[in-house]
Amino acid sequence: MSDLSFPKLLAGLVRIISAKPRVPRALHDNPSLATILNRRSIRQFTAEPIAPQIWETILEAGRLAPSTVNLQTWSFAHFTGEQWRDFFGSPIPFQASHGVVILADTHRVRSTLPEFPDAPLSEYTMGVMNASLAAMNMVQAAEAVGLGSVMLSETGRTGFYDAAHLAEILELPRGVVPIMSIVFGHTRAKSPVMPPKLPLEAVAFTGRYLETPAEVRDNWRDQMRAGYQVTHGGEKFSAKIAYYNRRIADTERDLRRLILGKEESKKETG
Amino acid sequence: MSDLSFPKLLAGLVRIISAKPRVPRALHDNPSLATILNRRSIRQFTAEPIAPQIWETILEAGRLAPSTVNLQTWSFAHFTGEQWRDFFGSPIPFQASHGVVILADTHRVRSTLPEFPDAPLSEYTMGVMNASLAAMNMVQAAEAVGLGSVMLSETGRTGFYDAAHLAEILELPRGVVPIMSIVFGHTRAKSPVMPPKLPLEAVAFTGRYLETPAEVRDNWRDQMRAGYQVTHGGEKFSAKIAYYNRRIADTERDLRRLILGKEESKKETG
Repeated sequence: MSDLSFPKLLAGLVRIISAKPRVPRALHDNPSLATILNRRSIRQFTAEPIAPQIWETILEAGRLAPSTVNLQTWSFAHFTGEQWRDFFGSPIPFQASHGVVILADTHRVRSTLPEFPDAPLSEYTMGVMNASLAAMNMVQAAEAVGLGSVMLSETGRTGFYDAAHLAEILELPRGVVPIMSIVFGHTRAKSPVMPPKLPLEAVAFTGRYLETPAEVRDNWRDQMRAGYQVTHGGEKFSAKIAYYNRRIADTERDLRRLILGKEESKKETG
Repeated sequence: MSDLSFPKLLAGLVRIISAKPRVPRALHDNPSLATILNRRSIRQFTAEPIAPQIWETILEAGRLAPSTVNLQTWSFAHFTGEQWRDFFGSPIPFQASHGVVILADTHRVRSTLPEFPDAPLSEYTMGVMNASLAAMNMVQAAEAVGLGSVMLSETGRTGFYDAAHLAEILELPRGVVPIMSIVFGHTRAKSPVMPPKLPLEAVAFTGRYLETPAEVRDNWRDQMRAGYQVTHGGEKFSAKIAYYNRRIADTERDLRRLILGKEESKKETG
């Protein structure tokens, strides 16, 4: 990917800075809605730890999330910063106060309901979906009590890119797959801008699938490149995508083994 | 699965009715937190429609959800009740005011960033994860403005059990997979009880994976059986699981084709 020209970088930044949630005037004073719409990913925390009771409330928000047929196909491996360092042998990302590895977990429900169907991709879909609902609830609960957080897909080997590595360390049984980590803390510096979001017209439509017009996609790409440098301390978006590309073959092989397991291996040998 | 004895049904119901979110006293007055923790799945709506501006705010909460590297791998096919009936040829579930089919969508990002890696399971993981985050944000935004909603995995052929059916009707390109529908409206009757949730100690742990003790699992199973009958108008939990079991082989085959696609077919023929 070629890098951005300076005018495009500037134009991208202007668009980003002027972007705001669209909320009707009647809802401007709704504190719960403001919490949800103004959430930002936080990557700088103060040294102040989260109080244990507050931390438990955040986990509680995960526990109380909705799930397919209320099957609660999730587990939360959670740590203080110190516990994280002891357990993983590396510091918690962004010097956060607490962190949690979100696990898509259909192992428990299978142990509980032996008649639960054996269908790896359906099961995985349910697991990832429900665990993500719990993850979003935790992040919004943190916002609600004035804390910050960021969801991680690979930083510090904490997300689904390192599912196999995490599965080994956490000694996960079959049917439990790590999908992301979230770290939490007292917000030190809140990013003033919203990262570049696609316009609502591009992602929401009535009826058949709507292809996003090329112009909208080009605009978004330029904003993504510009915005990434700002929110990630100068790191280039193209470098991030290239990094992902280098690692994806390994991740894909690991996920195939973790999710499709024996069945798939048999097919490959047979 | 055998049905519940009356004493077990009763014991399960008592445990369900006495269950409440655990929140420290200092946070009892936090309205945003209360919104998140007190959300319930709503299956009864009044005839009053959701105002268009409010509906757009709910979609906006989906648009502003976090996502892996801000890639926003989601799309929202949304409908009023009337549009739903016209498009799908069947009434919107629970006579809701509006509905949205949540799509895990990596098609758009692939069209925008040609260097996006080709790795079906990783891509699907990212798609389902991010689309679920958006879904949870929408549901919480609805709560925040006093509306109710319910996420559907199969009711009325609206969830991932009917991914292939929905993909055909919505004319979805490769890389776009329907994972759930959500219907929204003005709440008519809020379920007084929380459906039976696993205790926090069973789903959250520090360090290695913690197997849920058999006693906790047995308790939960009894509560699930009892609770399901209450929240689903007498429908038996065992009947629901049996229904899922009958359909799962088809769903699995469809997901395999939708997600793994050509690659997998080649392997099967070769």
